[in-house]
Amino acid sequence: MTIVEPRMPNAALKMPQDQGVLLVHGADRPGLVRAISTALAETGANIVSLDQHTDDPEGGRFFQRTVFHVEDFTAVRPALEEALENRLGKGLGLTWRLADRSVPKRVAILASTSDHCLLDLLWRQRRGEIPMTVPMVIANHSTVADDVRSFGIPFFHVPSRGADKAAAEDEIVRLLTGNVDLVVLARYMQILSQDFLERVGVPVINIHHSFLPAFIGAGPYRKAKERGVKLIGATAHYVTEDLDEGPIIEQDVVRVSHADTASDLQRRGANVERAVLARAVTWHCQDRVMRNGRETVVF
Amino acid sequence: MTIVEPRMPNAALKMPQDQGVLLVHGADRPGLVRAISTALAETGANIVSLDQHTDDPEGGRFFQRTVFHVEDFTAVRPALEEALENRLGKGLGLTWRLADRSVPKRVAILASTSDHCLLDLLWRQRRGEIPMTVPMVIANHSTVADDVRSFGIPFFHVPSRGADKAAAEDEIVRLLTGNVDLVVLARYMQILSQDFLERVGVPVINIHHSFLPAFIGAGPYRKAKERGVKLIGATAHYVTEDLDEGPIIEQDVVRVSHADTASDLQRRGANVERAVLARAVTWHCQDRVMRNGRETVVF
Amino acid sequence: MTIVEPRMPNAALKMPQDQGVLLVHGADRPGLVRAISTALAETGANIVSLDQHTDDPEGGRFFQRTVFHVEDFTAVRPALEEALENRLGKGLGLTWRLADRSVPKRVAILASTSDHCLLDLLWRQRRGEIPMTVPMVIANHSTVADDVRSFGIPFFHVPSRGADKAAAEDEIVRLLTGNVDLVVLARYMQILSQDFLERVGVPVINIHHSFLPAFIGAGPYRKAKERGVKLIGATAHYVTEDLDEGPIIEQDVVRVSHADTASDLQRRGANVERAVLARAVTWHCQDRVMRNGRETVVF
Amino acid sequence: MTIVEPRMPNAALKMPQDQGVLLVHGADRPGLVRAISTALAETGANIVSLDQHTDDPEGGRFFQRTVFHVEDFTAVRPALEEALENRLGKGLGLTWRLADRSVPKRVAILASTSDHCLLDLLWRQRRGEIPMTVPMVIANHSTVADDVRSFGIPFFHVPSRGADKAAAEDEIVRLLTGNVDLVVLARYMQILSQDFLERVGVPVINIHHSFLPAFIGAGPYRKAKERGVKLIGATAHYVTEDLDEGPIIEQDVVRVSHADTASDLQRRGANVERAVLARAVTWHCQDRVMRNGRETVVF
Repeated sequence: MTIVEPRMPNAALKMPQDQGVLLVHGADRPGLVRAISTALAETGANIVSLDQHTDDPEGGRFFQRTVFHVEDFTAVRPALEEALENRLGKGLGLTWRLADRSVPKRVAILASTSDHCLLDLLWRQRRGEIPMTVPMVIANHSTVADDVRSFGIPFFHVPSRGADKAAAEDEIVRLLTGNVDLVVLARYMQILSQDFLERVGVPVINIHHSFLPAFIGAGPYRKAKERGVKLIGATAHYVTEDLDEGPIIEQDVVRVSHADTASDLQRRGANVERAVLARAVTWHCQDRVMRNGRETVVF
Repeated sequence: MTIVEPRMPNAALKMPQDQGVLLVHGADRPGLVRAISTALAETGANIVSLDQHTDDPEGGRFFQRTVFHVEDFTAVRPALEEALENRLGKGLGLTWRLADRSVPKRVAILASTSDHCLLDLLWRQRRGEIPMTVPMVIANHSTVADDVRSFGIPFFHVPSRGADKAAAEDEIVRLLTGNVDLVVLARYMQILSQDFLERVGVPVINIHHSFLPAFIGAGPYRKAKERGVKLIGATAHYVTEDLDEGPIIEQDVVRVSHADTASDLQRRGANVERAVLARAVTWHCQDRVMRNGRETVVF
Repeated sequence: MTIVEPRMPNAALKMPQDQGVLLVHGADRPGLVRAISTALAETGANIVSLDQHTDDPEGGRFFQRTVFHVEDFTAVRPALEEALENRLGKGLGLTWRLADRSVPKRVAILASTSDHCLLDLLWRQRRGEIPMTVPMVIANHSTVADDVRSFGIPFFHVPSRGADKAAAEDEIVRLLTGNVDLVVLARYMQILSQDFLERVGVPVINIHHSFLPAFIGAGPYRKAKERGVKLIGATAHYVTEDLDEGPIIEQDVVRVSHADTASDLQRRGANVERAVLARAVTWHCQDRVMRNGRETVVF
Repeated sequence: MTIVEPRMPNAALKMPQDQGVLLVHGADRPGLVRAISTALAETGANIVSLDQHTDDPEGGRFFQRTVFHVEDFTAVRPALEEALENRLGKGLGLTWRLADRSVPKRVAILASTSDHCLLDLLWRQRRGEIPMTVPMVIANHSTVADDVRSFGIPFFHVPSRGADKAAAEDEIVRLLTGNVDLVVLARYMQILSQDFLERVGVPVINIHHSFLPAFIGAGPYRKAKERGVKLIGATAHYVTEDLDEGPIIEQDVVRVSHADTASDLQRRGANVERAVLARAVTWHCQDRVMRNGRETVVF
């Protein structure tokens, strides 16, 4: 018998200290970059990197992500937030959000029986590749329990069948509330209700096993085989009430041929799924993703 | 004024001499590879390369492409065809087709106003990259006439509007009949009637400006922008009566981002379109593509 | 404390029954495909798939991989081997090798401290993606011991420092002899002696963290950063006495930019490394790879 | 005989009006983004897009590309330049450069006998894909003369053999001086002297037919075939006195296999070469590329 000691999560995770990420969006107008950089400079912050996007030069929407360094970020933060609210919020009608880069995102993963997306996230988390902690994994089957616990991560089994579905969602909400900043559906084979999405109150990322909008719905690999496509893919998107219609964060494809059977497609697709989901979760946890209606801006 | 001498098409085209391509398909059963190789060996042919595919090990369909070398192919051909018909056709109920690799395919290109796919094919043909001649280009606009003629290739203007459509199709059929082995729609923006497809009697390849089955129909780049996808693509397929549903020969994609406008997508997509169409036409002209219902086998 | 039960390796691995793979190579001449298919047909074997390559139509070398199905393969095998040796070996001077597709390859993995390539192989093995068993993992550090054992796989720690190197190689040879069909160096950071390669007597596959022949030797990611390349990659190759010069099985790259630090390159490269190594090991275990001097033929 | 009327170059080229690009680089320090945005805002300019990079958060170098809109750019330009010099140049020791987006770059192309890179650039220029005009093409052979002139572009034949080399370079410098902003070597098979590079006084971009630093020097496709690589590629870089060592702007690769002959590699590589060169020239003409020692920053 082999005994695996639970390991400290994120031993390898090196978070930048005294750095913040400022996300700003709103109606475009002259002077926004200047206003933001001035607000930061006045607090003694030095800009480390800056990305900016306007979706239409004429009356479009403005998006900016600014990474900055400031001594004693925690101490300075309240003053900085006040300055931002005055200059950007009240002053210019912009929406802003501030994140501390030394604090990893708390991410709950929901899974079913497939382990490829789940394990890939847990490995990357343990390697320190993604700025996140994983306070819990919840699954409607117990197949993956041992694997999850071998990473030193709590596993909760919440079955979800027929009439239990609302009860299951209730229990999941209870487990998540206050404990997580993001929920990731790592091939979780249950459709979540609109009510659940509202109550959970944090973004939810899903991985869909096709290059959306192709092969919407169930059985995409079978459909792909029937249609004879030469590429299969995967799509990571935010979950909204419209199934498979949420804003796309990342997509990728892999080449297939007539020689690949439907199960070859599934196996090869699994590699794309886990890579695409890992990138989407990483970018979200790095505060690189901003929603713009049905689209995302990924800096 | 610059005068461009018409050039001999395919000056650079080096066709293999005394080589044939044998395509065979039919119900799978034991002994097919042996029967084919025996029929070839008996005629003194040496196999240069061989690709074989069975779509289902249990009672599926069998596909084989065999390239062989034989001295004096033209002289031997009748005897070889008789042997193939006896052994494969009558003997085993297989369908077979023989092609002489020294003879390029005769390809007509239909275009409208876009020149990127058209010119790419003409340029590759002139470089000898594709085993084809282009006896004519037909377009429903005259925009590309000068470019086509600068390659030394005849250009025919066949307008197609409203009530003229049937008349236009008649004229195109008249131009093509007996003169071509393949028709390529290089962004030809007219839907061809089922009647036309039957009368033209040779395969027709189309390039669709999306990774089918996503964004079927018109305006795929606009739809792609609205949906916020992170990949755009193109699909080359045989034209059938079901629009955008023909067997796919080749597909590819390119990565895009929120920063790309709809016209950026169109421009970047144009590069994928011409690359995908060129590969599909090349493979067809090399007798590498076999249809299998809604799918293709590409050896 | 979490207890992980050792799992049966390869529970998910479904090996085709009564199927063989026949690999043949030698000097090209007319009639080889026929001779092989005849030898198989006479034993009642039905060809499932066939790939053939000749590296030069004029006097080159011939390579063929044939997958076939035959009732009671184990019982038929001796007669088949005799027929092959008579027809192909003695008759035509060809070299041939026969493999039973129902028998997974026994693969030992050598590692150091990096776990990404190692764990990816173990995980794919457990999912049944690669037709292999892993009878042991050997490492010159003990960092990965727990992870390996959580897959139910024996872990042996064989330190290798300074004067111990020959002793370490002795011990590794002792562990491997008779027990494995392939050795995989999953970021094993020791150079193996020519003597070791001879004594171990089975193929050895290595993953090199650059797209060879660029950045041969140590520190490829640092060198890549210094040279300012826009692509980084990885190469899986057979190990020969010439370091980094063995026949390449598979390579791939990923796009990087000026914004990526050397440690970003390392992190992103790790994903390419594990994907490339997994493909190379899979193809080897499927008997798809044949050596041709410094090159490989991958069917 | 076919007569081709010279066409106006760039009929399709739509240049943004009243927009400028400001490129700034220098030693990083706090407040730079603010200083730049303030200088622009004071002149009434509105930032359209902004990219920023610091190669080391601790005492590194700062790079910024800012696209802005300002009414009557031509009229405002002198005042803006004075403000930039005062605030950024004298004030902060930064190097800056201003470009008018309504003015395409004047690009001379040097070629030899290969036409694939040359024609691809001319087509894209005619389609309006690249913000450039091509005032002349110079070649040391006359093979491509007719093709060039059919685009309405002057062609100059400057042979370069043995002792003539210095004379040839003299003549090329005479043709270029004052007339161009960029020189592109589109498979120009002559090594240019350091003296030439100094006298020509504008950047020179070359396309190398391998993924540097692999296969430096001549015959990369032959070397690639001998080494048995599974990927071939191309590299666009600025030309410096160190052959094949200039800062890389763009690279890409394509997958090849054992079945590809050396001439297949050359043909498939040609497609990568033209795509990579087109991207590099486009980005340069859009003022997206900044040099940083041996590297480039590509915004």
